[in-house]
Amino acid sequence: MKAEIISIGTELLMGEIVDTNAAFVASQLPSLGIDLHYVHQVGDNMERLLETFQRGLSRSDVLLCSGGLGPTEDDLTRETIAKLMGEKMAVVPELERELRSFFVNRGIEMPSNNLKQAMLIPSAQTLPNPMGTAPGWWAERNGKIVVAMPGPPREIRHMWETQVKPRLRQRAGGAVLVSRVLKITGISEGAVDVMCGEHLRGTNPTIGVYAKPDGIHVRLAAKATDDASARLLIAPVETYLRGQFCDHLWGTDEESLAAGVGRLLTERHLTLAAMESCTGGLFSNTVTDVAGASQYFKGGLVTYTTEAKARYGVDPQVLERHGAVSEQTAAAMARAAREQLGASVGVGITGVAGPSEQEGRPVGTVHIAVDHPKAQRAYTGKYSGSRLDVKQRVTTAALFHLRRLLVEMGE
Amino acid sequence: MKAEIISIGTELLMGEIVDTNAAFVASQLPSLGIDLHYVHQVGDNMERLLETFQRGLSRSDVLLCSGGLGPTEDDLTRETIAKLMGEKMAVVPELERELRSFFVNRGIEMPSNNLKQAMLIPSAQTLPNPMGTAPGWWAERNGKIVVAMPGPPREIRHMWETQVKPRLRQRAGGAVLVSRVLKITGISEGAVDVMCGEHLRGTNPTIGVYAKPDGIHVRLAAKATDDASARLLIAPVETYLRGQFCDHLWGTDEESLAAGVGRLLTERHLTLAAMESCTGGLFSNTVTDVAGASQYFKGGLVTYTTEAKARYGVDPQVLERHGAVSEQTAAAMARAAREQLGASVGVGITGVAGPSEQEGRPVGTVHIAVDHPKAQRAYTGKYSGSRLDVKQRVTTAALFHLRRLLVEMGE
Repeated sequence: MKAEIISIGTELLMGEIVDTNAAFVASQLPSLGIDLHYVHQVGDNMERLLETFQRGLSRSDVLLCSGGLGPTEDDLTRETIAKLMGEKMAVVPELERELRSFFVNRGIEMPSNNLKQAMLIPSAQTLPNPMGTAPGWWAERNGKIVVAMPGPPREIRHMWETQVKPRLRQRAGGAVLVSRVLKITGISEGAVDVMCGEHLRGTNPTIGVYAKPDGIHVRLAAKATDDASARLLIAPVETYLRGQFCDHLWGTDEESLAAGVGRLLTERHLTLAAMESCTGGLFSNTVTDVAGASQYFKGGLVTYTTEAKARYGVDPQVLERHGAVSEQTAAAMARAAREQLGASVGVGITGVAGPSEQEGRPVGTVHIAVDHPKAQRAYTGKYSGSRLDVKQRVTTAALFHLRRLLVEMGE
Repeated sequence: MKAEIISIGTELLMGEIVDTNAAFVASQLPSLGIDLHYVHQVGDNMERLLETFQRGLSRSDVLLCSGGLGPTEDDLTRETIAKLMGEKMAVVPELERELRSFFVNRGIEMPSNNLKQAMLIPSAQTLPNPMGTAPGWWAERNGKIVVAMPGPPREIRHMWETQVKPRLRQRAGGAVLVSRVLKITGISEGAVDVMCGEHLRGTNPTIGVYAKPDGIHVRLAAKATDDASARLLIAPVETYLRGQFCDHLWGTDEESLAAGVGRLLTERHLTLAAMESCTGGLFSNTVTDVAGASQYFKGGLVTYTTEAKARYGVDPQVLERHGAVSEQTAAAMARAAREQLGASVGVGITGVAGPSEQEGRPVGTVHIAVDHPKAQRAYTGKYSGSRLDVKQRVTTAALFHLRRLLVEMGE
């Protein structure tokens, strides 16, 4: 079953809102075995809407639309579907009663133009919308389906779950697509490609390689009649790739790098503390984004000044001799954090986030250290991009270094 | 000038990522006087890409594409444009040299398949991408333009600002739309409406009032033949509104709440320190997202345990008597942060971010305190949403409370 998503509304084309509805509906389709070929955003313009609907129906089995169901004149979704099917809209008395009672319950008089929300065409049935005033439409003609859902996220999500998804599951009932994402660091996108070898040309599962801020993501997607069979197709390829990537693989599917590190710390009954300057709290914040972090995170010190570093246990002589931005200081910060907060592992981060250089060090110069009684590491790197980019990249790098130390130390 | 946006990548159709690039580019077009008629998302499929490109060129003047420029086999944007224009791609020696040096600088050997990032067709010129390995393409044929930009947000944004926007401004040259956003807190949306008075009915500039997570945004948008004339239309209305909002106005346009607070601190030669638990570093991180924060931010303590709170100056008796999650503890944290780090103002945040309750306090219970030798404030609130929502909302609330104290204290 082939589908297209059509998100309707001029505000989308103004870039005033991001189209999260399309991403939501798209994420729901693979498990229904429905192939999504196109997503379109079109403004409140009858001619362009009609063109998009006609073309969509000519090549796909189902159009999943959101938006344009409001009461105002620029809401044209119903009118477009009526025109598309060559049918006339008429008020459905029962719908009008429901609509009027909706307003009565809120003690508001119903504006006359809301009446169009009670209209329907012969080929369509309504999809109830307890979250708002605009019912959806399920229109059907010669085996092709057009679904119109409201734009507000909570309304479309509720209508999707309760009305649209169950109907589509009945219809589609074909193959399902199951995907598995392997997350890797320390290898370039091109090199990962090479490691995937001939599996890259495989058709079931297919392999996609994507460069992300937290490394490379490899997605295996398998088609089958049901979840279990699809997973059976993925398993051998995943096993092969795990062998290729070994320690570079840090997580799967939705797991974040911070969650992966958290899992390692928990498994090994280790605790963590950090002292950071140029990342300004982003490292601690990222660690504590993971639910359950309080089990292993003892705390963090954002030492934004040299005095603060000294106050919290960095040897003033180290600061004096090597400067606040140095590998030695990063190492001292990692140890101080570990000792001060009584953690088993400490992370130290110091550098120049910008916009201007510091102690003669150029923007982007960063030192990261990881400290454990049995193992210490210190790294120096140069990070490019804006202030926020540098903060983000350095935080990711620090998590990578921390993870590597944990892996190298073994159980 | 008519434009279409084409976002390329199967991960978009899988709903794995939300297409923020399209919204970004869309938001840039009005000020260039370019009309956006369609946005499309298409997977890594040559046939569908080609169909979308051909149709787009048949009805629009410029296609703005993002994604599909990577080195892997499923990156097909260059191939599609070459086919669209009926031209052959060839390696450009100079580009190859740049590409190889990019890898040399990172001490990595260049994988062979990266070479296609050094390819070009006769009708296209490259757009440099200092943020990554994939240069963009600016292809032109019979007055129609196809622009290919990379998918990673920071890469496309940089390429847009430095390469694409200037070129398009030259070409478009129609009426421009300039907008100005005034950001307000402490007044209801309705009250802001009233303050705008008859300007609300103005047609040039128009006024839009929006409720946002960080307060109320009032958007003035003026149309004119050029930027300067548009700004002249906005100026008098802005002056009038500034008089209405006075101290409630905390920022304009892109300025963040943290930047507004930073400006106040700087103007008054005050410094800031924080001790936070449930926000886990997000407060310090938000403060230090502002360039120049090192001028007023002394540092932050992420005291994720009760021991850590005590260690860094919170009276153990207060913790004992009132518990770690209490107004009294928040107040003690604010003072301790201020005293420990030698700042003029301290912020303390303690609460239950979830997922599970703590000391019998339900998830979302949060206490925020602001401490200055001459003025102390403590607030208790209940925040709903996910763990990350709570962290975000509490951080915003803390910045509001801090700002209010600074405003109340006057110069």
